Amino acid sequence: MSSGRVYTQMGLLGESLTQVLIPASAIIGIGFALLQWFLVSKVKVSTDSELNNGYKDRLIEDDLEEEEEGVESPDVVAAKCAEIQNAISVGATSFLYTEYRYLSIFMGAFGLLIFLFLGSVNGFSTKSEPCTYNTGSMCKPALANAFFSTVAFLLGALTSVLSGFLGMKIATYANARTTLEAKKGVGKAFITAFRSGTVMGFLLAASGLLVLFLSIHLFKLYYGDDWEGLYESITGYGLGGSSMALFGRVGGGIYTKAADVGADLVGKVERNIPEDDPRNPAVIADNVGDNVGDIAGMGSDLFGSYAESSCAALFVASISSFGISHDYTAMSYPLIISSMGIVVCLITTLFATDMFEIKNVTEIEPSLKRQLLISTVLMTAGIAMVTFFALPSEFTLFDFGTAKDVKNWHLFFCVSIGLWAGLVIGYTTEYYTSNAYSPVQDVADSCRTGAATNVIFGLALGYKSVIIPIFAIALAIYVSFSLAAMYGIAVAALGMLSTIATGLAIDAYGPISDNAGGIAEMAGMSHKIRERTDALDAAGNTTAAIGKASLPLVLQLGLLPLYRLPCLVPLAGIKAVDVLTPKVFIGLIVGAMLPYWFSAMTMKSVGSAALKMVEEVRRQFNTIPGLMEGTVKPDYATCVKISTDASLKEMIPPGALVMLTPLIAGTLFGVETLAGLLAGSLVSGVQVAISASNTGGAWDNAKKYIEAGASEHAKSLGPKGSDCHKAAVIGDTIGDPLKDTSGPSLNILIKLMAVESLVFAPFFAAHGGLLFKIL
Amino acid sequence: MSSGRVYTQMGLLGESLTQVLIPASAIIGIGFALLQWFLVSKVKVSTDSELNNGYKDRLIEDDLEEEEEGVESPDVVAAKCAEIQNAISVGATSFLYTEYRYLSIFMGAFGLLIFLFLGSVNGFSTKSEPCTYNTGSMCKPALANAFFSTVAFLLGALTSVLSGFLGMKIATYANARTTLEAKKGVGKAFITAFRSGTVMGFLLAASGLLVLFLSIHLFKLYYGDDWEGLYESITGYGLGGSSMALFGRVGGGIYTKAADVGADLVGKVERNIPEDDPRNPAVIADNVGDNVGDIAGMGSDLFGSYAESSCAALFVASISSFGISHDYTAMSYPLIISSMGIVVCLITTLFATDMFEIKNVTEIEPSLKRQLLISTVLMTAGIAMVTFFALPSEFTLFDFGTAKDVKNWHLFFCVSIGLWAGLVIGYTTEYYTSNAYSPVQDVADSCRTGAATNVIFGLALGYKSVIIPIFAIALAIYVSFSLAAMYGIAVAALGMLSTIATGLAIDAYGPISDNAGGIAEMAGMSHKIRERTDALDAAGNTTAAIGKASLPLVLQLGLLPLYRLPCLVPLAGIKAVDVLTPKVFIGLIVGAMLPYWFSAMTMKSVGSAALKMVEEVRRQFNTIPGLMEGTVKPDYATCVKISTDASLKEMIPPGALVMLTPLIAGTLFGVETLAGLLAGSLVSGVQVAISASNTGGAWDNAKKYIEAGASEHAKSLGPKGSDCHKAAVIGDTIGDPLKDTSGPSLNILIKLMAVESLVFAPFFAAHGGLLFKIL
Repeated sequence: MSSGRVYTQMGLLGESLTQVLIPASAIIGIGFALLQWFLVSKVKVSTDSELNNGYKDRLIEDDLEEEEEGVESPDVVAAKCAEIQNAISVGATSFLYTEYRYLSIFMGAFGLLIFLFLGSVNGFSTKSEPCTYNTGSMCKPALANAFFSTVAFLLGALTSVLSGFLGMKIATYANARTTLEAKKGVGKAFITAFRSGTVMGFLLAASGLLVLFLSIHLFKLYYGDDWEGLYESITGYGLGGSSMALFGRVGGGIYTKAADVGADLVGKVERNIPEDDPRNPAVIADNVGDNVGDIAGMGSDLFGSYAESSCAALFVASISSFGISHDYTAMSYPLIISSMGIVVCLITTLFATDMFEIKNVTEIEPSLKRQLLISTVLMTAGIAMVTFFALPSEFTLFDFGTAKDVKNWHLFFCVSIGLWAGLVIGYTTEYYTSNAYSPVQDVADSCRTGAATNVIFGLALGYKSVIIPIFAIALAIYVSFSLAAMYGIAVAALGMLSTIATGLAIDAYGPISDNAGGIAEMAGMSHKIRERTDALDAAGNTTAAIGKASLPLVLQLGLLPLYRLPCLVPLAGIKAVDVLTPKVFIGLIVGAMLPYWFSAMTMKSVGSAALKMVEEVRRQFNTIPGLMEGTVKPDYATCVKISTDASLKEMIPPGALVMLTPLIAGTLFGVETLAGLLAGSLVSGVQVAISASNTGGAWDNAKKYIEAGASEHAKSLGPKGSDCHKAAVIGDTIGDPLKDTSGPSLNILIKLMAVESLVFAPFFAAHGGLLFKIL
Repeated sequence: MSSGRVYTQMGLLGESLTQVLIPASAIIGIGFALLQWFLVSKVKVSTDSELNNGYKDRLIEDDLEEEEEGVESPDVVAAKCAEIQNAISVGATSFLYTEYRYLSIFMGAFGLLIFLFLGSVNGFSTKSEPCTYNTGSMCKPALANAFFSTVAFLLGALTSVLSGFLGMKIATYANARTTLEAKKGVGKAFITAFRSGTVMGFLLAASGLLVLFLSIHLFKLYYGDDWEGLYESITGYGLGGSSMALFGRVGGGIYTKAADVGADLVGKVERNIPEDDPRNPAVIADNVGDNVGDIAGMGSDLFGSYAESSCAALFVASISSFGISHDYTAMSYPLIISSMGIVVCLITTLFATDMFEIKNVTEIEPSLKRQLLISTVLMTAGIAMVTFFALPSEFTLFDFGTAKDVKNWHLFFCVSIGLWAGLVIGYTTEYYTSNAYSPVQDVADSCRTGAATNVIFGLALGYKSVIIPIFAIALAIYVSFSLAAMYGIAVAALGMLSTIATGLAIDAYGPISDNAGGIAEMAGMSHKIRERTDALDAAGNTTAAIGKASLPLVLQLGLLPLYRLPCLVPLAGIKAVDVLTPKVFIGLIVGAMLPYWFSAMTMKSVGSAALKMVEEVRRQFNTIPGLMEGTVKPDYATCVKISTDASLKEMIPPGALVMLTPLIAGTLFGVETLAGLLAGSLVSGVQVAISASNTGGAWDNAKKYIEAGASEHAKSLGPKGSDCHKAAVIGDTIGDPLKDTSGPSLNILIKLMAVESLVFAPFFAAHGGLLFKIL
């Protein structure tokens, strides 16, 4: 079908050099992460003795110049910090182990399903078949693709789990250290929190690249010259990554918000004790939640996005002219972009950790924002370099059965527009969720007339915040598709994700600061330290919102399978997915409904789990004498157990909805309805996801704006405990499940359904549309 | 292009009989409405003397068997009722006059635009042209179509305005009468409120049909045998109806909710005075709002839907085999369905007003629900009759350039599935918004833990409530399209609207009861009477939610232009609207964003207007001595003015967004992007609209559930003023703009953009897509 001219000219970068550069940059990334970890670990936490519960109870602070004194002696405070850190770490680890036990069953079952479905395409035949695109050549049998897709799925799932778990370990390692550094000043604390985020960002980006690189080379031992089959199987890697991400996000999201909402409702609202007060029985569960939801869940999520977009780009490349002529370097263009991304992010990080020093709380947010800008500018130059050296100056791409001639600088624009669209969306998100700008200040102001107007204004803000991102996405799609068809879309998505290490570092920074603040409060540290950690946290909220909204960018990626489906089903005679046919339209409208169904499930889950938590916390306050006075410890473990049980139970229905819908739609209604379904869920879900994340972020920061009282206007609304502040707290609580459970999970809903359809497409093309066939 | 067999066989119903039956049933409908009005007017309100402000101050009650005494003497109470009724009526009339003055400017300007755009299609040539579908015949020039489209637009706009205005007049005439009847018992009050709703329902359905019938016959004087041109011009009627509806809904919606939210926030929350307390300065504005928003706005809206679906069905019919062979009766099938609908609704009404008597408050809701069921069952039989007599047994429809053979019983199924899908959606809505079922009770229960969980549960409820309606719509679309292509969809939409008279009666019943309750409270009537009007109102809330959710059904209709666009542009060579082309996809994703943009605008408008209202109400409470004690009257007029000014100012940006988007998209990006835009806004908007309406309805009824305390569970949450109740009031206030402003306006956003595209399609086909042509 590649009917155009066949180009045999290669890029300037040789094959052997490419084979060295990609793993080299991955190893540099891992090395850099370890270096940062080492720097964080210099904030020492060592023990002299053990408490009866086995927790470390002492914390020796090297070269610590005390700026001030806490309420208690430094030794006791430090011991408390260590104890709390340990409790959080133990809780998080135990939850993740339980979660992974459940997921391993799912992985086994779904892996088997993949093997059976894909194996059945040609009746489990072990004979080679003619290739679909590389006409005239023979490709490996469908059964082999089924087997290797399953292996890739398992590899992706394991890497995803590893990413989440490592992230959690680092975060729980860093939180108490950030608290202690906050005693020395806000700059030191910032560096510690940010370095820890960096560890996670680089470990994840680099290990994702390395595992993918190694998998390809291992698979190649069997596939040899059959690149079509090789890269088709590799898409299983993306599916594995994303399906783990779904459960990580949903389970972790329910966990963290059940604990958070439950703790707030009784503690802040009923008992009038501060956030993170150690007397609150749900406080440890709340902090554990930050680590399993915002850190481990997000790590898996971003890894999944990265894996999917790389796999999709590789698959599309494999049927281009350089794929068919086996130009290794050009074929590896997606991986080379990621390698360059690691190098660029490494340089960018130095700007934050070494070149400028944060002296003031107001410098934190600009510094994080600067990271985004620096990485984008540097990466643009990086893309130009990579494009010039790795790609032939002209080549042919497969475009719906026709050949499209493309020049290498076309691809430069595709990758760049993805990258810059990401920046625009990030900055828009910042405008709508940072309390430095009028939108959040208006929301805070509306608290004057109570919680109802706060909610109305917050919802309206979220709705409004989708406008610019959608135009940016539309432009990126239009330009990249016009220049380089589906490959253009694929590399634009990769462009957005190329600076993933920096993005993740910024994202992880948020929950680490949040935890640091929690530990400061629980350890009874002074007001001044709590103020510093709050400032770190407020900046983290905005940047986390940027991260959460940047994820939808990755939704663009959801387009890819849409583009691939019709390519895969030439036999079904499908040339277009026409909105004007009822088959497609019913898919579109039902697909647009799915994000609502899914959100209803996850929000209701958070609500029910939070109600259980509220009852338990109330019970403890009412039945444990001395709890309110702080003389007796609450029973943290029961609260941790409630969150764990609820999240594991409640993640099953939304998970099933996402995993089963494409299978049912494809099997019963066929590829056209399925394509409509994916398009519908994409265009509707992206709006729900962005607005939910931004509404939640804005409420959170409106509350922080009132609490901080940094301007005349803010002072007129406060202080803590005023009617305005109470209204703001209600908004914040409503926003919790929106911004941390349903919003971010929706990204995965869209991506996962798309990549699942991509993996099962050969099956649907062969056996799909049963219902229409019967009628 | 009608390449199939040409059928010349006619249906059993002769042309002359059809020409009599349609206007006859319209006149019967109008007569029935007048009879109901006469019955309502028997509740006499006459004056002995005039107050200095000219308001009637006395009210003589004929054969009134007093069951109880109010706080004051009956005479004083009756005089108060009359005075309040008059104030509401004067306020509503004055607002509508102001609104219509603005709208007349818009109508003139937009009418000119239609004329210029459509006239330019063939360069304002006055020569006849070959027909597009009826090959071989000559059709009237594009200039004539431009002129008659403009005339039809103006006619539609005027009829819409008339519908809204008459509805408002009837409602303000009926509200005090309902209050007075409530003294005699809940049954009498119900009959009065319901009869008044009936007046509006029948007047609107019958006059809509009559005007359309007369317009067709007038236009025919010029067009003669050119039915293509005739029915193409008639689509302007739908555009006129819907554009007035947009401003009516948005303006009225902002008006009513600004006043409602403003009154509640200060009155209920801050001053702790009951709803509708006469001391509240915003109370008259609030009641005026019910009449201009929920009554006049809704009347225009439903008229618009009716006009659009009739016009769309007529247009598609005009290019069928019976259109081309000029079979008048078959051609009039859409009008005959509406005529049958009037007769069916008339019989249905008798079940509520004459055959059963309401004796108990618990019987109200079942009685209203029964109306829906009875009308649907009877109408199904009616459709069978009409289909058998009016249509030839077999004929050809135009289906994307090919001919499709259709049997008359196919159309019976198309119309019926639309009708029954409407019932399913109505019942689903009832399940999710009535406090008789668990969803609303769960929301009420979540108030135990405060406003935040109430909001989370309410939002989740709304999201969940879209699932069944979407499946019902998808099924209806699939079946009706499979049986009879786009004509199937068109008549399915008409099927849904065929029982419009009953639907409207039920919808109008709600605000009338609400007003009646308000008047009872303001006139200081006894607690028992207020309880009765509250029960009427609670039933009205559920049924209003049914109405508001049934409207999205009409969205189906949004499909029609989608289906017609490619028919109209054979010259542009467009055969499909393919999601996989970037042109269409960017339309789809931007279209899906529009409902959010629009909702953000309307919600923010309500929020800002409510803030202004709050300030004014607070000012009056703080500066007018004796106001709280009830010795001095508040300044109602200023509050009315604030609502009026705010709503007129704030309706412009959302109105402009809706009216300009299709023009810009069509002119700059062309028909494919426009089709994607319409599809995107349809599939995304329908979810937002249904979930917003149901969330708001559920919060409102959860609050009423706690207030009524009718069960052990409800009692444990109440009474009024408890913490639970306060949380429920916050939910109710948030729901106000969702269920009464942004939710219902979204229906119009979708419908209006669709019908506008339909009217301007010839222009876009000739001159559209400028930007792509330049690039």
